[in-house]
Amino acid sequence: MAEDDAGAELPELVDANDLTGIRLWLAEHQPYEIADELERMPSHTALVPFRLLDKDRELEVFEGLDPVHQQEILVGLRDSVFHELLESMDPDDRARLLGEAPAKIATRALAGLSPAQRKMTAALLGYPEGSVGRYMTPETVVLHRDLTVGRALEVVRAKGADAETVYTLPVVDDGRRLAGTVQLSDLVVSDDDSLVKDIVDVLVPRVGATEPAEESARLMQQANMVAMPVVDSEERFVGLLTFDDALELIEAADSEDIARQSGASPVAGHYVAAGVVRLARARSVWLLLLIVAATLTVNVMQGFESTLEEVTALALFVPMLTGTGGNVGSQSATAIVRALAVGEVRLRDLPKVAWKESRVGLLLGLMLACIAMVIGTALVGTLIAVVVASSVIAICTWAAVIGSTMPLLARRVGVDPAVVSAPLVSTLVDATGLLIYFTIARLILGV
Amino acid sequence: MAEDDAGAELPELVDANDLTGIRLWLAEHQPYEIADELERMPSHTALVPFRLLDKDRELEVFEGLDPVHQQEILVGLRDSVFHELLESMDPDDRARLLGEAPAKIATRALAGLSPAQRKMTAALLGYPEGSVGRYMTPETVVLHRDLTVGRALEVVRAKGADAETVYTLPVVDDGRRLAGTVQLSDLVVSDDDSLVKDIVDVLVPRVGATEPAEESARLMQQANMVAMPVVDSEERFVGLLTFDDALELIEAADSEDIARQSGASPVAGHYVAAGVVRLARARSVWLLLLIVAATLTVNVMQGFESTLEEVTALALFVPMLTGTGGNVGSQSATAIVRALAVGEVRLRDLPKVAWKESRVGLLLGLMLACIAMVIGTALVGTLIAVVVASSVIAICTWAAVIGSTMPLLARRVGVDPAVVSAPLVSTLVDATGLLIYFTIARLILGV
Repeated sequence: MAEDDAGAELPELVDANDLTGIRLWLAEHQPYEIADELERMPSHTALVPFRLLDKDRELEVFEGLDPVHQQEILVGLRDSVFHELLESMDPDDRARLLGEAPAKIATRALAGLSPAQRKMTAALLGYPEGSVGRYMTPETVVLHRDLTVGRALEVVRAKGADAETVYTLPVVDDGRRLAGTVQLSDLVVSDDDSLVKDIVDVLVPRVGATEPAEESARLMQQANMVAMPVVDSEERFVGLLTFDDALELIEAADSEDIARQSGASPVAGHYVAAGVVRLARARSVWLLLLIVAATLTVNVMQGFESTLEEVTALALFVPMLTGTGGNVGSQSATAIVRALAVGEVRLRDLPKVAWKESRVGLLLGLMLACIAMVIGTALVGTLIAVVVASSVIAICTWAAVIGSTMPLLARRVGVDPAVVSAPLVSTLVDATGLLIYFTIARLILGV
Repeated sequence: MAEDDAGAELPELVDANDLTGIRLWLAEHQPYEIADELERMPSHTALVPFRLLDKDRELEVFEGLDPVHQQEILVGLRDSVFHELLESMDPDDRARLLGEAPAKIATRALAGLSPAQRKMTAALLGYPEGSVGRYMTPETVVLHRDLTVGRALEVVRAKGADAETVYTLPVVDDGRRLAGTVQLSDLVVSDDDSLVKDIVDVLVPRVGATEPAEESARLMQQANMVAMPVVDSEERFVGLLTFDDALELIEAADSEDIARQSGASPVAGHYVAAGVVRLARARSVWLLLLIVAATLTVNVMQGFESTLEEVTALALFVPMLTGTGGNVGSQSATAIVRALAVGEVRLRDLPKVAWKESRVGLLLGLMLACIAMVIGTALVGTLIAVVVASSVIAICTWAAVIGSTMPLLARRVGVDPAVVSAPLVSTLVDATGLLIYFTIARLILGV
């Protein structure tokens, strides 16, 4: 796990065009390590070592790459290699790759596929983007409920090699309607003469192919499943969502949420391979909106310009107050966005959440006010310190309420709660917090 | 997947003490749904429905709870139920529960276990907290490399029922040293007479039992493994880390990172069940430190008080500038913390990252400066607007560099990069940003 040593030299070997060295490096590393290293390189550079891979490891490395690198490597390959790779990919991975690829690649790819594979890919591409249908594998071993265990094991033996997984086996009735699933481990430990229908788990959670993929993945996690059966609108079995795809979905969703929380759009692919302009673009949208929104703070300050001119000392505490309010609001927002994402908080918890957070905010405000009182008294005097401390209490309470309710309101109107980012909350709390501060100042100082 | 409807009424049934209603509700829900609903209730309330569960679902629901609820429910159970539950738990789940439980519960629990289970739990508890040893399962079916496939399948049939998983089967040599693993699916499709040593995957990734659990889980994810073998310092097989524990580890790590990013300590357990004081405590440490650190901003403002008195208009843009700097810095910090967590960025990338982020920051600064120029000119006049716009460029570049390098520096000195939270970066950028602003103001305005 010495991550900081592993494969330190591949980029240098590529730069030096040392083909023998590259071959040696490839032989010494596992496919997932190779994929990781290739993702760190610009794709035109990654093509060199990729071409030097043994035939039998090509596919595994390719499947370990993100779609951006996959596409760009595909473009650089000769037709025969291009088609061979695509033909041997798992249908769900292929559908996802082609779903995001430019039409030119997608057409070239579909044309080269065997009729069976083309049919499967086309079927998966028929499901909406982000739905379970795009992520499930149609290559499974399906058992009829009337089979004996012995016969079922024979079916697994005969067809297992082509399936993506044989650990969870869908069990269907005559109309291909899903009865449930059996685990391969249950088959193996059961008596050969017993019937599949006697050991099938009929209560196993299932999802519709058009349901959102992320939610389905989280359901699998909650229920600890290796694979979850996917059905169409008539309860017919259509595929399995496997744990590795579920894990990838959850990790991608977490990465997106984390990026959004900081007010950035998620950037697909590897950080190291992402260009400056692409990173800047992903972060610019919110920054632009927020600097415009920050005009509000200028307006508020202008509204109290006479107060400021009379008591310049009030200006000294502006960054401290907006900072503290922003911090408290961001904490609340982050906690609620995460609780919503993992399903701990639901829409109908809104009043409960707001009430709880207002008390958390008040408690934090009281604590921070003591510190503010000390700092204020030491630096400028008691009267201003009282203004600052009272403002801290009010701003913290207000910030916690705003920060916690906004993600829930976003969910209510159908917007991803994660767009209620820390920067958004901070900016809103800045303007309203200043209003609170100067109002309290006028009341106490009488200016 | 209608999460907002599922089990809407359990808390009300418990409040009404409607035992028949509770029994009915329990019968209609899956164990993982029941566990989820119990986690939303305070643990003394959760005890009521838990006691009403059927014997055969008790364990599954219990294993679905977080350690906090597990402990508190245990305390409320009669001795016989208490011991039965613990005895039938998976050894790794039990070790984790007892590792966090107060000594009183742990002693009572260990005393009631059968010698075999006690030995396994004690062994797991011997590994450091947060290490793979705490999360692996010792209950596996181990195959000797000289077995035939037919014989190996018999071993799986005989011992499989007691194992946590039989999908990945560790293969050992005479000294119990790990040779590799075979997948159950490979056994099933292989010829009965072939030898295990001919189909064993000797290149399979493995980890030491004392290695950090989170890193091992991420390795499993990269390599798409259902279970990963764990070895001791002499390469002897000691257990398997299974995909469900890996997924839980990754999710917990993500939740922690997300909480830390907002400057809060992670709160164990369910948001809804967490009390106000506990939430406030988790968030207070950083807030207290940061408000003290914010004294720096007051100092900087004081240092320029004469400038402020002369040109009060400068004060108007303080919240906008500190806000923008904080946003840019938080975005950079968040991106790098995440890239470090998922292994996209390594320590030795520091110079590359700093150079890239400085250009991203400059680009963003140039863009935002245009907006600032317009706002400034409209609200106060061109000269102040030039000061503000120039400051935006400098502050954004500076913030991106600070935000991106701090997590890497934290990692270098052995601190979790996630403690470099958005609030921490904002506070640091606030003080330094003000210094930049007023220095530019003095230069341009000559005051």
